[in-house]
Amino acid sequence: MPQLSTRAKEIPASPIRKLVPYADAAKNRGTHVFHLNIGQPDIKTPPSFFEAIEQANPEVLAYTHSEGILSLREKIAAYYSRLGYPVNDQQVLVTTGASEALSFVFSTCFNPGDELIVPEPFYANYNGFSVFSDINIVPIQTDIENNFSLPPMEAFEALITERTKGILICNPGNPTGVMYPKEALEKLGKIVKKHNLYLIADEVYREFAYDNLKHHSILGLPDLEENAIVTDSVSKRFSACGARIGCIVSRNKSFRDAALKFCQARLCSPAMGQIGAAAMYDLPASFYEEVVVEYVARRNTLLEHLRKIEGVYVPEVNGAFYAMVRLPIDDSEKFCQWMLEEFSHDGATVMMAPGSGFYSTPGRGKDEVRMAYVLQESDLVKAVTALQKALEVYPGRTN
Amino acid sequence: MPQLSTRAKEIPASPIRKLVPYADAAKNRGTHVFHLNIGQPDIKTPPSFFEAIEQANPEVLAYTHSEGILSLREKIAAYYSRLGYPVNDQQVLVTTGASEALSFVFSTCFNPGDELIVPEPFYANYNGFSVFSDINIVPIQTDIENNFSLPPMEAFEALITERTKGILICNPGNPTGVMYPKEALEKLGKIVKKHNLYLIADEVYREFAYDNLKHHSILGLPDLEENAIVTDSVSKRFSACGARIGCIVSRNKSFRDAALKFCQARLCSPAMGQIGAAAMYDLPASFYEEVVVEYVARRNTLLEHLRKIEGVYVPEVNGAFYAMVRLPIDDSEKFCQWMLEEFSHDGATVMMAPGSGFYSTPGRGKDEVRMAYVLQESDLVKAVTALQKALEVYPGRTN
Repeated sequence: MPQLSTRAKEIPASPIRKLVPYADAAKNRGTHVFHLNIGQPDIKTPPSFFEAIEQANPEVLAYTHSEGILSLREKIAAYYSRLGYPVNDQQVLVTTGASEALSFVFSTCFNPGDELIVPEPFYANYNGFSVFSDINIVPIQTDIENNFSLPPMEAFEALITERTKGILICNPGNPTGVMYPKEALEKLGKIVKKHNLYLIADEVYREFAYDNLKHHSILGLPDLEENAIVTDSVSKRFSACGARIGCIVSRNKSFRDAALKFCQARLCSPAMGQIGAAAMYDLPASFYEEVVVEYVARRNTLLEHLRKIEGVYVPEVNGAFYAMVRLPIDDSEKFCQWMLEEFSHDGATVMMAPGSGFYSTPGRGKDEVRMAYVLQESDLVKAVTALQKALEVYPGRTN
Repeated sequence: MPQLSTRAKEIPASPIRKLVPYADAAKNRGTHVFHLNIGQPDIKTPPSFFEAIEQANPEVLAYTHSEGILSLREKIAAYYSRLGYPVNDQQVLVTTGASEALSFVFSTCFNPGDELIVPEPFYANYNGFSVFSDINIVPIQTDIENNFSLPPMEAFEALITERTKGILICNPGNPTGVMYPKEALEKLGKIVKKHNLYLIADEVYREFAYDNLKHHSILGLPDLEENAIVTDSVSKRFSACGARIGCIVSRNKSFRDAALKFCQARLCSPAMGQIGAAAMYDLPASFYEEVVVEYVARRNTLLEHLRKIEGVYVPEVNGAFYAMVRLPIDDSEKFCQWMLEEFSHDGATVMMAPGSGFYSTPGRGKDEVRMAYVLQESDLVKAVTALQKALEVYPGRTN
């Protein structure tokens, strides 16, 4: 049999995926599973998405421009400009989700073996994209007891080698829900400027900013036109994950021209998703406001009930729709599997994402789980109650 | 400024893309441009595609399974089985176009620096995917005077080194329109078996088979379950290029499981495209037959008129909707640009793809152009007339 590639062996299977058969088995036994494991919002996709597609009604569903249809790029540029980050349509490349955006950024900026510093815990699929582009993620540790805030500049500088070519942040953070204050971003800006690095920000959760905290894009940092690259998506913003429409935004023209060649090689992003996405960028501010009100209520409910459980440590959570929570358990992968395989309360159990999947440092995250608060409040209460009962009887409880 | 990656510099800009500004300028001067340069069919996308999407009408456009929605995988499997190549839904991975399919196949099967033998001329974007995955395409020469048929086994074996890990064919061929007979494929099967290589076939033009020639998929080759990987797409088959739905088909389970991890890292393919594609796989045989009748008429018209032009050499063309044609010119890139920049006849000119873009051997293809017969017959006649007049006055004419 022909060999598989080394990268095919290295690309990690997500710990969440490993749990799917156990969740299916639980459902087959009649147990209800509360899905707090994935960032699939339950908010309705705006009707304007579907209406725009119906109205477009093309005779031939043709390739679009590789950089994205002009109307979508213009609307994305206008959206950024409204937020106070002036960009033009030439500085926007439409991609097939933020996933493709990150793959193209990695391949455009980095050579095989180059190093990218990423605050840990981080979105597990960054590992997949780094294997795909043969680069190395170097984790920089952040801590639950410090609310996962960015480490001091010295900690970054201690990790920078001659192979370091960039820093990647996710803001607001998946899996942590952290929001980086302006001052922290300005420090990052100084580091990347000093060491001539790219600063890549995954800002797909931009609008999910709570507690009157303003989200700051790296596009607003001074004097960083050549270094700053934002990846973005309509998936979470508009609850349109299946559309697979994202973008790369950068004012660095030579980067943009190079990334465009990767876009051209794959011809174009989905035409109908682009048409629908363009319409959604016309939604009024009230759309975002209503979504935020809903998520704040859910977060409050989730955290309030979690904090009542003995032995559970819940950090501050100011953005996105995730919380990394420390549980009194031996091993989050074992615990999450046990919840699905062995436990139920009132006919229900909870599926969560094991914390270890978000760390690349061995051993970290073993007592943490990521919970996505993408359910109604009443279901969140039931899910936390089930978790509480589970912790009372879990054989691997640690304190 | 931070450096771009080596691959960003290596990924070639398509020679067609370089011509776009000249085509735009010609249109701005009021010149009509016949687009024979790209494989964008003008056939109407089947209404069932759009109807299925309207009927699905999801409240939340959620992520689909990373391997593709089950109904689409089942229908693709049934389609292959009807053609005489029994596969099941587990052997199909839905991808975002055949572009992503090839990228995932390259990254799953090959390590950086590995060699892939590809008959030349070949689809120019194979270069892009090979740069993206850091593998090396080794061209094996085929010749216009031999109708671009596959070279003898010895020619392949002469190119096989310890870095060779696969052979990639496009059948029916882009840019050549070649159809490989069963015997040629069987020989390829023996070579890959003997040397333990992957045999990858890009079969997106499968139905575009003319002159009562039957298309043979590599899935029909005996004893090749572990080696054979097919990439496919709905783009050409159903004139739905903008849907961005393709697939990988293989009976090699460990390959499939590894490729699935790349699928998982990017979450899923476009949801609406998948729903629409599933409906199109229900189209009756008459759909394909009508399309073939149309393309055969176009091919006959194009070739008949081209063969009347002195100095033009036209090979046999039995499939897909392209012809590689030899012209009495010094340099196809210069000629194609000149056609757009300096020439018009009856207010019109022709945009073609320079042949050199389909060769990686330096110097080859300089006197060839690829013509895609994706226009009405009457327009094809006008386009060929314009080409004939152009060749009469082109300053770089060679004979």
